[in-house]
Order: sequence, then structure tokens, then C-alpha cells
Amino acid sequence: MTSTPPDLTFPQGFQAAAMAAGIKPSGRTDLSLVTSSHDCVWAFAGTRSTTAAACVTRNRALAGTGAPVRALLVNAGNANAATGEGGARDNAGMADAAGSVLNVPAEAVLTASTGIIGHRLPMDRVLSGVEHLPDELGHAAAPFAQAIMTTDTHPKTAHATLSTGARLVGTAKGSGMIHPDMATMFAFVFTDAQVGQAALRAAFPGVVARTFNAVTVDGDTSTNDMAAVLANGLAGPVDEAEFLSALEGVMRDLARQIAADGEGATKLLTVKVRGARSEAEALTAARTCCVSPLLKSAVHGNDPNWGRVIMAVGRSGAAVHIEAMTVAVQGQPVFAGQPLAYDAAQVSESMKAQEVVFDVNLGVGDATGEAWGCDLSAEYVSINADYTT
Amino acid sequence: MTSTPPDLTFPQGFQAAAMAAGIKPSGRTDLSLVTSSHDCVWAFAGTRSTTAAACVTRNRALAGTGAPVRALLVNAGNANAATGEGGARDNAGMADAAGSVLNVPAEAVLTASTGIIGHRLPMDRVLSGVEHLPDELGHAAAPFAQAIMTTDTHPKTAHATLSTGARLVGTAKGSGMIHPDMATMFAFVFTDAQVGQAALRAAFPGVVARTFNAVTVDGDTSTNDMAAVLANGLAGPVDEAEFLSALEGVMRDLARQIAADGEGATKLLTVKVRGARSEAEALTAARTCCVSPLLKSAVHGNDPNWGRVIMAVGRSGAAVHIEAMTVAVQGQPVFAGQPLAYDAAQVSESMKAQEVVFDVNLGVGDATGEAWGCDLSAEYVSINADYTT
Repeated sequence: MTSTPPDLTFPQGFQAAAMAAGIKPSGRTDLSLVTSSHDCVWAFAGTRSTTAAACVTRNRALAGTGAPVRALLVNAGNANAATGEGGARDNAGMADAAGSVLNVPAEAVLTASTGIIGHRLPMDRVLSGVEHLPDELGHAAAPFAQAIMTTDTHPKTAHATLSTGARLVGTAKGSGMIHPDMATMFAFVFTDAQVGQAALRAAFPGVVARTFNAVTVDGDTSTNDMAAVLANGLAGPVDEAEFLSALEGVMRDLARQIAADGEGATKLLTVKVRGARSEAEALTAARTCCVSPLLKSAVHGNDPNWGRVIMAVGRSGAAVHIEAMTVAVQGQPVFAGQPLAYDAAQVSESMKAQEVVFDVNLGVGDATGEAWGCDLSAEYVSINADYTT
Repeated sequence: MTSTPPDLTFPQGFQAAAMAAGIKPSGRTDLSLVTSSHDCVWAFAGTRSTTAAACVTRNRALAGTGAPVRALLVNAGNANAATGEGGARDNAGMADAAGSVLNVPAEAVLTASTGIIGHRLPMDRVLSGVEHLPDELGHAAAPFAQAIMTTDTHPKTAHATLSTGARLVGTAKGSGMIHPDMATMFAFVFTDAQVGQAALRAAFPGVVARTFNAVTVDGDTSTNDMAAVLANGLAGPVDEAEFLSALEGVMRDLARQIAADGEGATKLLTVKVRGARSEAEALTAARTCCVSPLLKSAVHGNDPNWGRVIMAVGRSGAAVHIEAMTVAVQGQPVFAGQPLAYDAAQVSESMKAQEVVFDVNLGVGDATGEAWGCDLSAEYVSINADYTT
């Protein structure tokens, strides 16, 4: 995992601005804009929630047209979800305002909102902020990565440079410690690589499945989750395989950062599954382990309680041949069709690390998958037990 | 919910015995037997886990034969799951021993094990216990209800008497506070009503879906969950509708007791969903709310954070028409297509009750469903963070 270098800049043609528009009570930056000097091909993935927020619904509709985009407007501190038709109008109003001030069609502006559910946006503040943002545009990535945060404890960025010099810069937000309704994941990747939209969109769902959809903090899917990649082509043609590999690397890095910074988390939980019937089943088994409160609690307490892996894999529904199944904790084999003898105190000691890794072989096929989560701490409960009142 | 009357007896023909065989380190009763003087028709539901324990696999196979049963042998303190072929032999050995001492076929003996996963049973203690149990048979229900517990804080029973005098006595176990691997649910209902096996088995899955499968403590499905009803017919014919209604009432009562006694729980969480497209979707939406760590944490903190209901319903996948959707907390409407004004402090005060009820209308159909869970407390984490080491 990489931290955010203070001097990280966006790829050619991209600029960003951020400001404190007064949406967050804390007074932190909460409204931000990314623009591209040229049209971007793009790919989008939004939450599967049936109560998706207006920004997700609108972006998904825009993706359906295939038209290029030029800008992304993000607010933090308010999810604009479950806000009815008025909320949908507010969302459209954000895009209209940004399109107008940037002199591009409203349909070329993507929107993203994150924060508490069920409150209308303070549109006067949002709209006056949008008027102001273009004056602040610059090349630095950090202000944008900072302004999209809600309860994250630090900004999350990842980047890669291809052999042609084309660059990818990704930013993401997860969930943190102050506003517990904001278990909202955003990931945006910007690149000056010249890639085809069709190829990008064909590859994107698989990349999302192996990266952001393999992350879990608490199993609670937000109404506002979204991931998008925008490519403006200014760096010219690139090898498609090299590009997609770099894209997956950037998104994987961001995904792990989100898991490690989960609410109340003290360590990263990684579950690597092999021997599955399909990649989808491998990912389901791995993610079910990462979401299990019992396994997460055991990881918190450095308890090599591998029976909870057996349980979680079993409830995931993935096909398993238990006689051929194996489990290892921090590299120590603990189960191979039957319980193995091991030094529990030694393994417990090895779990006092920044990352705890379980390796699981389902014994039924060749497919693999990996998922990331975090431990469950009493801090998670106290963060989330008392917020709106 | 009913508590266990100390003088509760089993229906005619049923007797039970319990003893401390030395499986639990605590020295509490851990081996128990229920017998019927006559053949029982029966219905069974076992965990859907793909890593189901030997007892579940064996009972399911027996159910497939349609043959009657005469006894149920239960051990607590050890799940006999993920124990390989040796574990399966141990399970068969339990039934063989009980059949032999009771002079009934081994195939007429159901088995159930609950406790830690991944450890072989101490078969010498189990087998000598089985030799001893028939000497202890009596009519009281409490010793059996006590002996099947693991980390439950109290025994769970429920009972009903039909107009003909036929009785139903149900017992269940959930999960409690000492052995966190034992998130295992058992429910056994015994009746002297004379009912047809075909009708019983036709109705049982629906009853289980609306009762035990609507309970969640932490979303972690055990390898050993099972529910069974045994009817020996000694009280003669009954009205089928009356019987099934009583059966559902007993199982619902037990289900709510399991939820209220979840690990670390301080209160019962009830989510009632109506306006769903189907009963299955209503139950899924309700249960997803009850398993949400964010909603459970809010309930723990008396926080009327209804946005988390919107989130949980959305991630459940149930069809919803958000413009027609409504949410109420403890009877107070808080959302009706858009946020409603309400006195948050007053609602928070009303949540300081033994039971917190959310009423949700999905606005798309006529189906209803109800699910039960509990709040998430820091105690849950401490219970489960440090066990095997």
C-alpha cells in the first residue's frame, strides 16, 4: 500500500479544486471538482443497492449513453440519499451548475455525494461553492483526495506510470470514525492514457469485482458506492494489457487502503482462496470470511480460531470438498481435511501484525480469489452507537 | 416470550435425561437424551452450510428415508464439525450406542452436537454417558433444555396446548457468552398430537423460514444448526390448521428468545416489513436490517438513525419503490418517500426499551415478513476476541 505523496499531481489535462463549502459541520473541505481539458472515455460501477442515491442513478444513466465526460463534482458530508424527488432535483442542479460554469454540457459532469442519509443538501452553499471552484483549479491530487473523505482517517491515493509515460492516478474514500452513516466507498481513477471506451468498459466490471467488491468493512453496502475511471488520452496510445494491469494494481492498492482504514480497524485482514470452482465462488468465500463478525473478532484478539473460517466458507455457499480443504493462518497450516496440531501461542503471536492472512484451499477446482477486510473492535461499536442524537 | 416453568413436562410418551459427561470443561450438563415410547413422525431442517457437521448430514439422510424416530441424543461443548472421517464415525457411534441401550435401531436415533469446531469428541466419555442416561429418564423438560445450552444465558422453552388436549413442547438453544464458536442454533419441538408426516413436512420449511430462519445474532451461520419436530400421536387426532398454528407460535417464541439472548445483547431488535413483492423478499429485507452492524450499533445507542434501514433494505436486494416506502421507529413515522420531521430525542428515549421495533413498508406489493435480532455491543467483541488462546 502506498501513502499519498504530498507532491502527487494528476495526469496531463486533469485539474482539481477543493473547498470548504459548509456542508460538513467540522468546516473541513467538502466540495471538490475534477476537470479534464479534453473529453474522457470512461467506465463506471455503482452500488447494487435498490435504494441507490440520485448521484449513482444519474451517473449510471449517463454511462448508458456512451457520451464522453469532462468533469466530476463531489460533495462530502451529505449523501443526498432517501431525499425524494427534491433530492434528485438537487443532484441535477449540481451538474447543471458545474456544466454552466465550466462551459460544458451538464451531461458531461458526473456527480458524487457521500455522507449522512436522509437529509437534503444545503443547495445555496453547494451552488455558491460551484461558482467559486473553477478559480481554484490546480494539478495537485491531495486536496481532492482530502475533500472527498468523510470519516476516513487519511486520504487514499495510488498511482502508476506506464512504459509510454502515460500515468494513472487513483483516489478513494472509505469509512472512518466520525459520521457512521458514511460507510460509503468512492474510487476515481484518472489517466492520460489513450484507451478505447469499449475495451475499458469490458474490463472494468472484472477489475471492480477483484478489487473494490472484494473489500468489506462491515457488510453494510452504502446507497452511494461508486467507482469510475476517466481517460483523456493526452499521453497517447498504450498497450492495453499493460494499462489494464496497471489499473487493477492501482484499484487493488486503493481497495486495501480502504479495508485497513475501516471504522475502528487496528489491522488488515486478507483472505486468499484457491481451489475454487469459479473466481466468483472464490471471491464470495473470501469475502464471507472477511465480513464474519466472529472471524473479525478473533483477528482482533489474535486468536487463531480457524473453525470460524470453516464456518464462514460453509455459509458462503461456495462449493467445497471438506476432505480436501486446507486452511493456514499466517502461513501455519491448521486444517487439512481434519484438524492439524500446531503451536497456538506461536500463531497468536504472529497475528499481532499489521496484516493477518488466511490461506484457504476449497479443494474443488482451480479458481482463485482474494478479499480484504479489517478486525472488529469495540471502537467500531462506540463509533456507531451514538451519532444522530 | 415465555420463560421456562420449572415444572414444565414433556408431552405424553416423551421422557428426557441429562448429565455432565465431562465434554464441557465447566462441568455443566452436556449430554442429553429424549426418548419417545412410540414411533414419531418427524420433520427436520438443517443448516445450509456447505461445511455442515456430521450430525446434520446424518439426520438429513435419515429424513430422506421417511422412517420413524424414537430418540434424540445431544451433546454440547463440542460441535464435532471439521473433524474428518473420524468425526463422522464418532457421530455414528453415538447413535449406535443410544440405539443399543434403548433397544431401537440406530436409524431411529437423531443426533445433535454443538460447541467448538475442529476438535474430536472425547468418545470414551460420550459412550459411557450414553450407557448411563436411560437410568435418568424423567418427564421434566428443564434438565434437557439446560443441557443443550452452550453460551446461552438461560434455557429456552415454549409450549402450547391444543383444544383436544394434545401438547407441544419446544426447546431451543442460541448463542451466549463463554464459548464464541458455539453460535449454533438448535430447536426441537415434541408433541403428542397425531399428525401426518407428509403434512408436517410440507408445512415445516415455511414455518422454519418465518421463525428460526428469521433470527440472526451476527449473520454467521453455524455448521450445526438444526430444527426438528417429533410427533408421537399419543394424544390422538388434531385439527391440522390448529396444530400448525400452535407449532408456528412455539417456534416463533423460541426464535425471539434466541435473538434476545444473542451474544452481548442488551435488547431485542424486531423489523416488520410489509408491502413486499413476496414473503421471501419481505423476510430478506427484514433479516438484512437485523444483521446490519450499523443498525445494530444504532439500536445499542438508542439512535433513531433510520437512514441505516434505507441502506439495509437497499442492500438486501428486495424490490422497493422508494417514493412509496415508509419507515417508523417505535411507532414514530420518520420516512415516507422523503425525510419526515420528528422529535429525535423523544424517539431515542423510546428506544431505551427491551424491544426496539422498526416498521417498514417497501411500497411494491402485499407480502409481509418479520425478523428478529439484537443490538451490537462492545461486549460481543470482547466475548469473541479471545477464546482459543
